[in-house]
Amino acid sequence: MFNLQNFRTQVYKQLEPSAWLKEGVSSTNMILVSIILVASVAAILETEPLLSKPYAIYFNFAEIFFGSIFLIEYLARIWSLPDQNGNPWMARLKFIFSPSGLIDVAVIAASILPIATANVSALRLLRLIRIVRLAKLGRLSAAMKSLDEAIYSRRYELGMTVGLAIGLLIFGASALYWLEGELQPDKFGSVPRALWWAVITMTTIGYGDVYPITVGGKIVAAFVAVAGIGLIAMPTGILAAAFSDAMQKREDSEPH
Amino acid sequence: MFNLQNFRTQVYKQLEPSAWLKEGVSSTNMILVSIILVASVAAILETEPLLSKPYAIYFNFAEIFFGSIFLIEYLARIWSLPDQNGNPWMARLKFIFSPSGLIDVAVIAASILPIATANVSALRLLRLIRIVRLAKLGRLSAAMKSLDEAIYSRRYELGMTVGLAIGLLIFGASALYWLEGELQPDKFGSVPRALWWAVITMTTIGYGDVYPITVGGKIVAAFVAVAGIGLIAMPTGILAAAFSDAMQKREDSEPH
Amino acid sequence: MFNLQNFRTQVYKQLEPSAWLKEGVSSTNMILVSIILVASVAAILETEPLLSKPYAIYFNFAEIFFGSIFLIEYLARIWSLPDQNGNPWMARLKFIFSPSGLIDVAVIAASILPIATANVSALRLLRLIRIVRLAKLGRLSAAMKSLDEAIYSRRYELGMTVGLAIGLLIFGASALYWLEGELQPDKFGSVPRALWWAVITMTTIGYGDVYPITVGGKIVAAFVAVAGIGLIAMPTGILAAAFSDAMQKREDSEPH
Amino acid sequence: MFNLQNFRTQVYKQLEPSAWLKEGVSSTNMILVSIILVASVAAILETEPLLSKPYAIYFNFAEIFFGSIFLIEYLARIWSLPDQNGNPWMARLKFIFSPSGLIDVAVIAASILPIATANVSALRLLRLIRIVRLAKLGRLSAAMKSLDEAIYSRRYELGMTVGLAIGLLIFGASALYWLEGELQPDKFGSVPRALWWAVITMTTIGYGDVYPITVGGKIVAAFVAVAGIGLIAMPTGILAAAFSDAMQKREDSEPH
Repeated sequence: MFNLQNFRTQVYKQLEPSAWLKEGVSSTNMILVSIILVASVAAILETEPLLSKPYAIYFNFAEIFFGSIFLIEYLARIWSLPDQNGNPWMARLKFIFSPSGLIDVAVIAASILPIATANVSALRLLRLIRIVRLAKLGRLSAAMKSLDEAIYSRRYELGMTVGLAIGLLIFGASALYWLEGELQPDKFGSVPRALWWAVITMTTIGYGDVYPITVGGKIVAAFVAVAGIGLIAMPTGILAAAFSDAMQKREDSEPH
Repeated sequence: MFNLQNFRTQVYKQLEPSAWLKEGVSSTNMILVSIILVASVAAILETEPLLSKPYAIYFNFAEIFFGSIFLIEYLARIWSLPDQNGNPWMARLKFIFSPSGLIDVAVIAASILPIATANVSALRLLRLIRIVRLAKLGRLSAAMKSLDEAIYSRRYELGMTVGLAIGLLIFGASALYWLEGELQPDKFGSVPRALWWAVITMTTIGYGDVYPITVGGKIVAAFVAVAGIGLIAMPTGILAAAFSDAMQKREDSEPH
Repeated sequence: MFNLQNFRTQVYKQLEPSAWLKEGVSSTNMILVSIILVASVAAILETEPLLSKPYAIYFNFAEIFFGSIFLIEYLARIWSLPDQNGNPWMARLKFIFSPSGLIDVAVIAASILPIATANVSALRLLRLIRIVRLAKLGRLSAAMKSLDEAIYSRRYELGMTVGLAIGLLIFGASALYWLEGELQPDKFGSVPRALWWAVITMTTIGYGDVYPITVGGKIVAAFVAVAGIGLIAMPTGILAAAFSDAMQKREDSEPH
Repeated sequence: MFNLQNFRTQVYKQLEPSAWLKEGVSSTNMILVSIILVASVAAILETEPLLSKPYAIYFNFAEIFFGSIFLIEYLARIWSLPDQNGNPWMARLKFIFSPSGLIDVAVIAASILPIATANVSALRLLRLIRIVRLAKLGRLSAAMKSLDEAIYSRRYELGMTVGLAIGLLIFGASALYWLEGELQPDKFGSVPRALWWAVITMTTIGYGDVYPITVGGKIVAAFVAVAGIGLIAMPTGILAAAFSDAMQKREDSEPH
């Protein structure tokens, strides 16, 4: 005999990750994640005019297809939410106006509505946030927790190196503004402009759009570059040590 | 007295790495590896027109020489394969149509046949795969196993950072597509195009063929660059901790 | 009943970080740090002509406002300094002519005096040194101590890698001066000029303003690049190990 | 009473580092190291025409001064060498024709002889090798030993990652030679030419003189870049773990 209330609970369990806490992610969610990934790749490719123009019809069809699935899932989720204090609409309204619920509506609207501007396709990528929500579960959750703990246990050491890095950035930018501000005004003509150079140098990216040309500027840049290497080596070392300790603790607390 | 069957077993032992399991690699295989390395260097140098034109005769001779050795080794290996269920051809056909066997034929054909196009010389480098097969043996095998174990024991943490990195890539590319897509259409005109910039920035390569030119784009780029540093420091730290633990376990299990 | 001496001690406790040793930073100092940060951001933005010209009036007002606060704080600090040997002026003169005191005067002068040249705005950033002084306190102090200890415990290993790095820099620069000095005289025409290339290559920044163009130069550059990677991996590894040991020791000595 | 033989032994002890084994470096050697450093900086600066032309007279004087000191030290060292089998000249000839002795002569000749070409100044930097010899002593020796041991204990793991890195280099270079060899013949026209790009990409230097321009080339480059990051993270992690273990062992064996 078909039981509507029972079916509703089943739908809820399939759609709501937190209803599965220990068993991991439901098979429905697995399928939804796959659809989100395919839909996101489609949304990324759709922004490329060399692809979207010749294959516009396929992309439009795919968008409507994905949008419909997400619409059905959205309606099913609202319908299946368990009653709060005997009132089914309280939980529903709570979800509709929650950040998750509003993002869902935005993503569905961006898929189905016949608008196609740059901003809309960026909106479609909000789908990926759904995957992040799932990451809270199962083994990934344990992994995230151990990452979090390791970072948290060394927050002062890491904060210190971040502080030193910001200080070095401001020092480098100020020095080059002072040394080359008048020689290359569009590149070092102010501290904020020089900060672009400082960030690209300290992260060792070095695009080559900005670089010092005087002897003094080169000496400062060399100092910033070498000190920057140390400031990247330090947090790496701190994190390595923290992960090692976190791992050891977890093993010590586990039964063998 | 010469015993053909005995000689065949000897040849097999010399050519087949797995027949030597604990003793390491046979001396014949050592010589073959050296020849593969020299032949690969020759194949690399041969692609350079400044070398291959004046010294064409030497390169052709070398190719025929190396090809002959690999042909002899291939035939000897087929001949020496031990019988399976009393039938010598079963094992032979199995090897001939195995991936290893087909690669061997392709490499020999690329060396001996009098064709000389770009693709052929690339084919010759397939020889290097042979060396990878040897890596499965002896001490390198133990080293590879400990690398594998260390990576496997932290697969969720590493997967998490890879997921975060992909998310950051897509975020950065989408943001710059949105901010500078109309200003630099050939560079940021679509998310896939902007992804090239995002990858080259997050890996800190920074060729300088693409970089943001607006204030907003530079702020996003600076954020992606700094976050990218953290996302490279994290897996390094995780791997360091994992290698340290793997090492400790191995030592604990070994007798002193 | 109002007690001037008591009030003076209270003012001193609020302004002098070291008077709070264990309790951390006083609320007055917290507010001062916030003002310093805001004033520093204002000083950075003020150097940008696109901002400082249209909003000159706001920036000038802000500078006078911040300068007044720092002036009041400076005077309050001098007044509140505790007597030394019964003489209030001894401690005061000592502070006025101490490096900290002189920096304070320079910063206040740079804020209040109606001069607005590049050098003055650089002077305003000296404020940030004040924040460094606070870092000596509380939990940040413990973090800094553990960073310091870790680096100190491995000073010989780190010094060794620094020595190797300097040797590699000089080797690379000399080799390229020798190989390409006559081909690219403005870039490799002397060892000091080639050192700029060597630093930018070994730190993996690679702006692209200088790079080898001959086969020999490229081989040397490839060697320097690969060796440089190792010389960055080594101190990172040393620091990671040192931090891990320092952490373990701290935990062993703490009661559980 | 002056004793020549005793004085000779004293001179030997001052000049020969290995005669001091445990006490560290003699004060004479400390002074010599300082002179070598100053002389090396002078030799580096002398290659810069903007400095060497106006100040030629000072540089020439300095060279003759440093050369004389090194000449005296060389002669004193030969004279003071202890007798071998009762024959003073056996040890002397042995030193004169040893690599160290020949380098000393070359350095002195480069300093004193009135020749001034590029090659000569490079020769002068050979002095720095002298400092390396001193590194074998005292605490630096212990530090170097622990670096050596850490690297040696993981030689198979490190060799494995080096092998993987070389494989990735050849794969990347071959792929881009195949994909863009005809489009950018001067940059990817042969595997050796493409290897320059591969090295500069995998070390994340990215000068920007060579980069892929086709979609296929960019996808391969992105793969090489990301895989390269992992191949740099792995040896860093291995070394970190090795240093940590080496440190622990040293502490376990030391008395507390």
